[in-house]
Amino acid sequence: MKFSYISHLHCPKCQKRFSAGGKHQLCECGSPLLVNYDLKEIGKVLKPKDLLTRNTDLWRYHELLPVQNKENVVTLGEGMTPLLPMKQIGADMDISNLLMKDEGIIPTGTFKARGAAVGVSMAKELGIQELAMPTNGNAGASWALYAARGGINSTIVMPVDAPKITRNECAIAGADLHLVNGLISDAGKIISQTVKEYALFDVSTLKEPYRIEGKKTMGYEIAEQLGWKVPDVILYPTGGGVGLIGIYKALKELQTLGWIAEDKLPRLVAVQAEGCAPIVKAWKENKMESEFWVDSETIAFGVNVPKALGDFLVLQSLYETNGCAIAIDDETILEEQRKIARMEGTFICPEGASTFSAARRLREENWIKANEVVIALNTGAGLKYPDTSSFETPVMEPGESLTKNVSNNTFREGR
Amino acid sequence: MKFSYISHLHCPKCQKRFSAGGKHQLCECGSPLLVNYDLKEIGKVLKPKDLLTRNTDLWRYHELLPVQNKENVVTLGEGMTPLLPMKQIGADMDISNLLMKDEGIIPTGTFKARGAAVGVSMAKELGIQELAMPTNGNAGASWALYAARGGINSTIVMPVDAPKITRNECAIAGADLHLVNGLISDAGKIISQTVKEYALFDVSTLKEPYRIEGKKTMGYEIAEQLGWKVPDVILYPTGGGVGLIGIYKALKELQTLGWIAEDKLPRLVAVQAEGCAPIVKAWKENKMESEFWVDSETIAFGVNVPKALGDFLVLQSLYETNGCAIAIDDETILEEQRKIARMEGTFICPEGASTFSAARRLREENWIKANEVVIALNTGAGLKYPDTSSFETPVMEPGESLTKNVSNNTFREGR
Repeated sequence: MKFSYISHLHCPKCQKRFSAGGKHQLCECGSPLLVNYDLKEIGKVLKPKDLLTRNTDLWRYHELLPVQNKENVVTLGEGMTPLLPMKQIGADMDISNLLMKDEGIIPTGTFKARGAAVGVSMAKELGIQELAMPTNGNAGASWALYAARGGINSTIVMPVDAPKITRNECAIAGADLHLVNGLISDAGKIISQTVKEYALFDVSTLKEPYRIEGKKTMGYEIAEQLGWKVPDVILYPTGGGVGLIGIYKALKELQTLGWIAEDKLPRLVAVQAEGCAPIVKAWKENKMESEFWVDSETIAFGVNVPKALGDFLVLQSLYETNGCAIAIDDETILEEQRKIARMEGTFICPEGASTFSAARRLREENWIKANEVVIALNTGAGLKYPDTSSFETPVMEPGESLTKNVSNNTFREGR
Repeated sequence: MKFSYISHLHCPKCQKRFSAGGKHQLCECGSPLLVNYDLKEIGKVLKPKDLLTRNTDLWRYHELLPVQNKENVVTLGEGMTPLLPMKQIGADMDISNLLMKDEGIIPTGTFKARGAAVGVSMAKELGIQELAMPTNGNAGASWALYAARGGINSTIVMPVDAPKITRNECAIAGADLHLVNGLISDAGKIISQTVKEYALFDVSTLKEPYRIEGKKTMGYEIAEQLGWKVPDVILYPTGGGVGLIGIYKALKELQTLGWIAEDKLPRLVAVQAEGCAPIVKAWKENKMESEFWVDSETIAFGVNVPKALGDFLVLQSLYETNGCAIAIDDETILEEQRKIARMEGTFICPEGASTFSAARRLREENWIKANEVVIALNTGAGLKYPDTSSFETPVMEPGESLTKNVSNNTFREGR
């Protein structure tokens, strides 16, 4: 029994084939690479019920992951995040089977941990000593921390405006951290140059093929947590889109394995912010690629990606599942975030909240039916964005009496 | 098959017995109450292997929890947090089997979620409409969010100096939040009065008996994750001490059930901050209760508890397991926190870091042997304390070249 049944890699654009085990970055044609497995063999040696007694992290699916030597696994216990029924907010938007996949309950507080866990493990397996990446914050934090655990150095460049907490995470992990007085695209240019100059391994989004393999485990988990059924709809906050590409890839793999039915995939929904919606624009125009979104801006920092390298794969997953793309404005996102906290007790990130706003709107348009099983994917904990909500709270002196105004027992908002 | 095998409650001080299912607070004698179960019956209907296929949250132990009607369970998917090998930092302090129970990977980002999940579920079962508590931040945040999920109102009072993020969590959950220009003891006095005036349910630490039942599941999980063996030592950052009392209670229950050996319990270690070490002082003087610690101060906000209601139970657990108590200064804690992040890739809270410093010192004193199995309990994510670490990071302009100083590739600290 092998630990991994990786067979090879291939380019989804020009179909060129690559061997497993190399220090792959992009294809010569500029496309990201995808990893293939010997699914026929896996089908013989592994059954869904075998998973029941395995560890509750994403390595439970190790046959379907690229790491070949178990010793190279770098883990902080990531995966098998809760799939929570959201009954109150579901009722509020007339969706009776609304669930949230809560990726805030994971090391480093965001779903970036999945990509970092598998990506860094592969970097270790490939003997890489230092990796480098630009980031809007969360990915850099995850990769810096996992790299530290794997004994690998990291160089990270992020915009000065990125959330301060992610800066602290990189710094405390011992990363060689630099800020740039600009956008992630400026950070990306600096990294490209640094990678060449110092011969570092470039782990920018989709420039190495293994991050997507970590992210795809969200798809496996959703299917497993639903008893090897798929939902009707999955809504995903889309920046680089790696998670959506990954979920789609995972579901196709599960179909091939025969673990889920072959005749139905969930309709995938790419949710973006109105201030940065290149995928939505491309989808509306029925295009296969997106255009660079000029002057992008949104409080949902993680989806502020003006042009994603894997846009064509994201769009393909929408077209092939009869999904759609939809943009939400910042004010609506923040209002939804507060509503979710009050109704469900979950303090989620703005990106996650946007998927609920999208579900609400798609239900209004009857694109989502009232009794469909709908999964909103929350990509991170609200804790990582302490400044998106701010409240005025009364201050008392010791010994003072508290006056409860029962009729007005709502929270006080401020900005 | 019953959902819970709760039998009754009892007072550990005066031994008075109370029936299950009432709105219990403290015993007439002033002591917290403990919950009892029909362990003989549980032993008949439940075996350790039955747990293998259950959900990976703390409700997998529902027979050993007080909620009698499954419908009343209020959950965000809390529990079964990672038990991580800490090889690098372990080697650094010459402990070959050092593990960390990482309670940062849980809803609301701290172990307070466990107490809140079970406490709020019981509040729901008891028909309580509004609960109230003073807090240093994290407990209030957890209870406010779980209460929101359970459809229960909450009144929270916290010091103005409590971490701002916990304030936001309470506010966004819709709690009736008030700040006090003082300490948690001042908040406590305000809550005591408010509870009387408005007939609210007082969920202050140990004033209701169910929070401890949630916390004890850490003990079950540690035993289950070690294959129903116990470690040699468990180090716990001790403020109110509920987790330590809970872990001790859980291990005793597992002994009675015969799920772990009867002849050995781990030596429990209460770790405190030098600026607030009442338990350490009492333990050194071999006393059964602690004295109020005047002018307490520490950056480890969660353990700033000058006098714990359950101090006698904490001390009892130390004496009966041949454990000990030890205090660590703030500077050492912060240095350890950074070391752990660099060596292990885990960004943990200062309270959690203090348990590593304690392990290091106890190893130096040979109180811990080099080959013993040692568990450091991290009570929360470093994310919740963004201001305990601060770093000076170079800022570049777009288009600038990054200069790597490989020989000096360490992080830049500032305060």
